[in-house]
Amino acid sequence: MENPDKKYVVGVDIGGQTSKIGLVDARGDVLFQNVIRTDIYGEDAAAYIKDLAAAIKSCVEQGGKKMEEVRGVGVGAPNGNYYTGEIAFAPNIIWAADHSVAFSRLLSEALEGMPVSLTNDANAAAVGEMAYGAARGMKNFIMITLGTGVGSGIVIDGKVVYGSDGFAGELGHVCIERKNGRACGCGRKGCLEAYCSATGICRTAREWMEATDEPTPLRSLETIKSKDIYDAAKEGDAFSLRLFEYTGTLLGRTFADFVAFSAPEAIVLFGGLARAKEFLYEPMKRAMEDNLLKIWKGKVQIVFSQLKESDAAILGASALAWEL
Amino acid sequence: MENPDKKYVVGVDIGGQTSKIGLVDARGDVLFQNVIRTDIYGEDAAAYIKDLAAAIKSCVEQGGKKMEEVRGVGVGAPNGNYYTGEIAFAPNIIWAADHSVAFSRLLSEALEGMPVSLTNDANAAAVGEMAYGAARGMKNFIMITLGTGVGSGIVIDGKVVYGSDGFAGELGHVCIERKNGRACGCGRKGCLEAYCSATGICRTAREWMEATDEPTPLRSLETIKSKDIYDAAKEGDAFSLRLFEYTGTLLGRTFADFVAFSAPEAIVLFGGLARAKEFLYEPMKRAMEDNLLKIWKGKVQIVFSQLKESDAAILGASALAWEL
Repeated sequence: MENPDKKYVVGVDIGGQTSKIGLVDARGDVLFQNVIRTDIYGEDAAAYIKDLAAAIKSCVEQGGKKMEEVRGVGVGAPNGNYYTGEIAFAPNIIWAADHSVAFSRLLSEALEGMPVSLTNDANAAAVGEMAYGAARGMKNFIMITLGTGVGSGIVIDGKVVYGSDGFAGELGHVCIERKNGRACGCGRKGCLEAYCSATGICRTAREWMEATDEPTPLRSLETIKSKDIYDAAKEGDAFSLRLFEYTGTLLGRTFADFVAFSAPEAIVLFGGLARAKEFLYEPMKRAMEDNLLKIWKGKVQIVFSQLKESDAAILGASALAWEL
Repeated sequence: MENPDKKYVVGVDIGGQTSKIGLVDARGDVLFQNVIRTDIYGEDAAAYIKDLAAAIKSCVEQGGKKMEEVRGVGVGAPNGNYYTGEIAFAPNIIWAADHSVAFSRLLSEALEGMPVSLTNDANAAAVGEMAYGAARGMKNFIMITLGTGVGSGIVIDGKVVYGSDGFAGELGHVCIERKNGRACGCGRKGCLEAYCSATGICRTAREWMEATDEPTPLRSLETIKSKDIYDAAKEGDAFSLRLFEYTGTLLGRTFADFVAFSAPEAIVLFGGLARAKEFLYEPMKRAMEDNLLKIWKGKVQIVFSQLKESDAAILGASALAWEL
């Protein structure tokens, strides 16, 4: 039953290093934000959850509201499972790296029974785009997050696809290179993520630099970050421009296969690497169009997140809580 | 509103050559079947629909029932669109090959307003498996039809995925070979269908025969059909056994990518080539397991249709009509 007095929700975005907490109103305005570390608790999930609960209460209070006015808490976390409320085997979260944590239940208990909804970070981003961002009004789209890894959230008929076990939408791990594919963090080879994440494009840069003598300012760097490639491309570095051309092409032709699955209106991009849209968009769009079945040519948009990056993850997670 | 007097449905399976019509009861028993030609009407869709309506009435009558007892007609057809009720640009249906036919509306008019529901043949098969076959009780599975082409019907949360335009689920046209991929009927290259359909395995046979001198009874045939390869494999022909091993491996590793999309409980196989399950199952299962993300290893079944092949397409189409 909807309670008109509960006009706010809390969104929590759990990353490997920090966890961001935000108090959000129905219009999607973040009224107050705070942050705690994720990585100082060792394997002690209970200690983390205790501090998180305190930070949530403090966030609500400092936002000038009462916990009684909060409908629920939505949480986005790597490997967060919507069905079970567990965070399980999340390589970057120390206290949930090699086992499963009954996260939603424990956090709800620490918040005197407040409802908690959990999903993975890409699904949360999809919900946020649908509620407040580039996917407003869309019922069928695929969210692709281009960060350290490649994540995805698939929306069909206005609902996130969770599949039979809550883990659906691991599109970063479809195979795009069967022969001598790059090793991926998941233990397999040739995954999209190994090529088209922020780290993937840096691997391509290193491979190309080893294979040729082509000059590029990237050679002077000890370690390359995707931001360095972006900056070099902005300066007109042909090598870096080609890196984006290549990465965009791999993405676009893979998107064509995704379209064959769920016939979305759009692919929505988000995350650090997506900031390079001026260099990624054209090769991506071209490769997708070249590879689409005739019935979809010219019909599927590629759009970029319209949410302020600092707010987006919190908004996405918070949007989950409206469904509670 | 459900009408308890309407205890029957009619299923229609439209193929390129013939259209099969069946009167079906709530238990999935086909009470009566008849058939008309699809291919003798040239481009005159109206003439076909008139004869189809007459055949439907005759089928109901000869099944000992009245049209008043029929809830509706479900139709499975190549390129049948669930949303629009149109059959559009279906290469094998002469009267809808190069334009769009408002099929559901026209058939409903020819049947004095009886409700008509249309979808493509693979989606109809998925609905049939869910209602009466190997997918009973499943809410998340992917139907793959291995016939002249490769079709698919994707079920998520108990519902067929139609996507933004009604055309979702063209998994026969994901690209499995980027470099020098085989030309596909769709105009693109490297599609799953070009390798793993009944015609695809025959192309592999011809390619291999040209490339080697390896003896096989297939060499004595003027044209090879998938049934010939099956028969030769049954006789122990090593060449034919390897053809299934190869085809099954391609299918299995591609299924692993499908699983990353919707996390289904099962892949359900149907169609002419699926009859070779004794030769396809093992390489398919092995390749899928080898390529699955850890979270899904050992958790996704590959099952074969349990429906009598002559009834399956009619049952699938008829199951649509229960939703009317």
